[in-house]
Amino acid sequence: MPEPAAPAMTAVLTAVLTEGPLSRVGLARRLGLSQAAVTKAARPLIDLGYLEELAATERTGPGAGRPASPLSIRPDREFFLGVKITADELIGVVCDLTSRVRASAHRPLAGRDVDHVLAELGRLVGDLLDGPGDHRARTRRLGLAISGDVDRATGLVRYSPFLHWHDVPLRELAEQTTGLTVVVENDVKALTTAEHWFGEGVGAESFALVTVGTGIGCGLVVNGRLVAGVHGVAGEIGHIGVDAGGPACHCGGRGCVEAIAGTDAIVERARQRTGRPELTLDGAVALARSGDPRAAAVFAEAGDAIGCGIAAVANLVGPARIVVSGEGLAAYDLFEPSIRTGFERQAFGAAATCPLSIRPLPFEEWARGAATVGIQSFVAS
Amino acid sequence: MPEPAAPAMTAVLTAVLTEGPLSRVGLARRLGLSQAAVTKAARPLIDLGYLEELAATERTGPGAGRPASPLSIRPDREFFLGVKITADELIGVVCDLTSRVRASAHRPLAGRDVDHVLAELGRLVGDLLDGPGDHRARTRRLGLAISGDVDRATGLVRYSPFLHWHDVPLRELAEQTTGLTVVVENDVKALTTAEHWFGEGVGAESFALVTVGTGIGCGLVVNGRLVAGVHGVAGEIGHIGVDAGGPACHCGGRGCVEAIAGTDAIVERARQRTGRPELTLDGAVALARSGDPRAAAVFAEAGDAIGCGIAAVANLVGPARIVVSGEGLAAYDLFEPSIRTGFERQAFGAAATCPLSIRPLPFEEWARGAATVGIQSFVAS
Ligand SMILES: [Zn+2]
Ligand SMILES: [Zn+2]
Repeated sequence: MPEPAAPAMTAVLTAVLTEGPLSRVGLARRLGLSQAAVTKAARPLIDLGYLEELAATERTGPGAGRPASPLSIRPDREFFLGVKITADELIGVVCDLTSRVRASAHRPLAGRDVDHVLAELGRLVGDLLDGPGDHRARTRRLGLAISGDVDRATGLVRYSPFLHWHDVPLRELAEQTTGLTVVVENDVKALTTAEHWFGEGVGAESFALVTVGTGIGCGLVVNGRLVAGVHGVAGEIGHIGVDAGGPACHCGGRGCVEAIAGTDAIVERARQRTGRPELTLDGAVALARSGDPRAAAVFAEAGDAIGCGIAAVANLVGPARIVVSGEGLAAYDLFEPSIRTGFERQAFGAAATCPLSIRPLPFEEWARGAATVGIQSFVAS
Repeated sequence: MPEPAAPAMTAVLTAVLTEGPLSRVGLARRLGLSQAAVTKAARPLIDLGYLEELAATERTGPGAGRPASPLSIRPDREFFLGVKITADELIGVVCDLTSRVRASAHRPLAGRDVDHVLAELGRLVGDLLDGPGDHRARTRRLGLAISGDVDRATGLVRYSPFLHWHDVPLRELAEQTTGLTVVVENDVKALTTAEHWFGEGVGAESFALVTVGTGIGCGLVVNGRLVAGVHGVAGEIGHIGVDAGGPACHCGGRGCVEAIAGTDAIVERARQRTGRPELTLDGAVALARSGDPRAAAVFAEAGDAIGCGIAAVANLVGPARIVVSGEGLAAYDLFEPSIRTGFERQAFGAAATCPLSIRPLPFEEWARGAATVGIQSFVAS
């Protein structure tokens, strides 16, 4: 039976993209395909300029005689735009095929209504495509990342709490505005895809990314695929209950990670503990850094709750590694020790050996995640 | 490129086994294979007597003319033994290919040393194979289920806390004792496999089974496959921390589900609260059922902790459904309301729509799980 060409092409392109130059023999072994099938799938990708053959450097075993030319990606064959939409700003990047950022730009938002956001999106896309680098001619796709309940298949934003959007057909509207092919994804899932394809999750069967900020989210890759949740919910680490006697959460739960460690919860608790009702997040951070034990305790408790939630991920699905990031980790120094303590206490047995990468996240990375979703949808097409 | 025959045969047999009679057209559609490939894969399975063609009952579309004969499994073509090893008893069953129990038997264990358990296993296998039903001639495989850290690939029991076993090469020893082909699996994973293939998890991309008893465990199927955990740990719902101010757990954690809702924890807490240090589990159950509010509160708190742990599973991986079972649910009436309350409070948004099946588990079901692992390893071979 002849193999369908499209899945083999997708598999070959994905492997070369995420795992670097590979010989046809190596590809065949890795993908469980025959060498003939790999050669057949690679041919149009070479003809179209997405792949190139590197100079022959290795031989395929003793006496094989025929040199193997590894296949490599041509990163600047095509560019991809990625934009993260926040409540007060659009952050955009141009990435190449390997998700390397080639250009970036920001636009502040004066309001949150859909028309205004789309108009600013149109201007941002123009700025990026017509700026230095001459990217317009080789750019066809735009990825949009937004927090909330997003249906990637239809491009519908079902609900975005920060933007107060309900049922906005964002893909359709953005395609009309920009003339590009658009894909819309939840921001945490987009970031997880970027880490899985081009970051610390490359090659991992299972992998988790935890984001700490106003919300506390988690993207999960299990058995090689992003977990979507049959009922539309997955990765909601922020609403795992870790303290039965803890504070009520906006979700109706009690002692949720987010009710202890989300930005709003931290500010609220710092105000209560210090008796300073005007305290901001920056103020709480400064106070904790200056050695105020009450403010420091708020961050330590938050880190412990996050560590406990992360341990639940490790105990349940046992990912190869967990990346902890997000804008909340600007106060990284205040969180990190107690995240690790909470994790180590609550991780069961060998689950404690799961490596944690705890690092701040530049806001631009969210936009890069959006661009990666565009790359992924291109590769799958 | 010709398709490798073995994966197609496995796919066809698995689909007919778990989803009932299917036409070749239906199989081709479901498995993404050509009809020719399905026909080719089904042929040896029919010749060997595992599949049979039912009388033609449907036609393959308007004007198709050719009647389609659905393929069906022949359940009694082969039998499989399953044995659950506990600290004081062996429970064994004979199952047919569809995991229906055809015979069962028990043997008490006078001790926990490996030689004694193997000798009793040999006797139990003899009782089962030579009892009514004449199963010996068509039985080649034995599945063993045991709680603890089990390496299914090698058949090594790395650690079994209840039996006090360390690094026992159980597969090899049991094959020598019984002359059968043996597969060894962790008991919760075996039970999850049985539910996924033949129970409430049939056809589900994601599915969870939670067992409540001395330990509190969880088997997880995500993206169609059992989750194993990269570091060897997965499904450890019992050690999710749900109460930061709760009791210390034997694992080193604090407020773990198991430290609140495991059998030992329940007995311990019931003794403390009632001031009756001689109280047994049965005594605590009787007291709670008689209306003693202190004893009832212990079960209610246990149920809430379990519900909270289950909500963590739903929030993180969003399974299609969750089955809650285990010998601890003999006291089902005392647990169920608070399991549901805890789950509903802590499940986030649409995760609360995940159906929970809460039901007691006859001990024989564990043995059936073991037999299912034998069926699975046969189908994969
Ligand atoms: Zn919550
Ligand atoms: Zn524990």
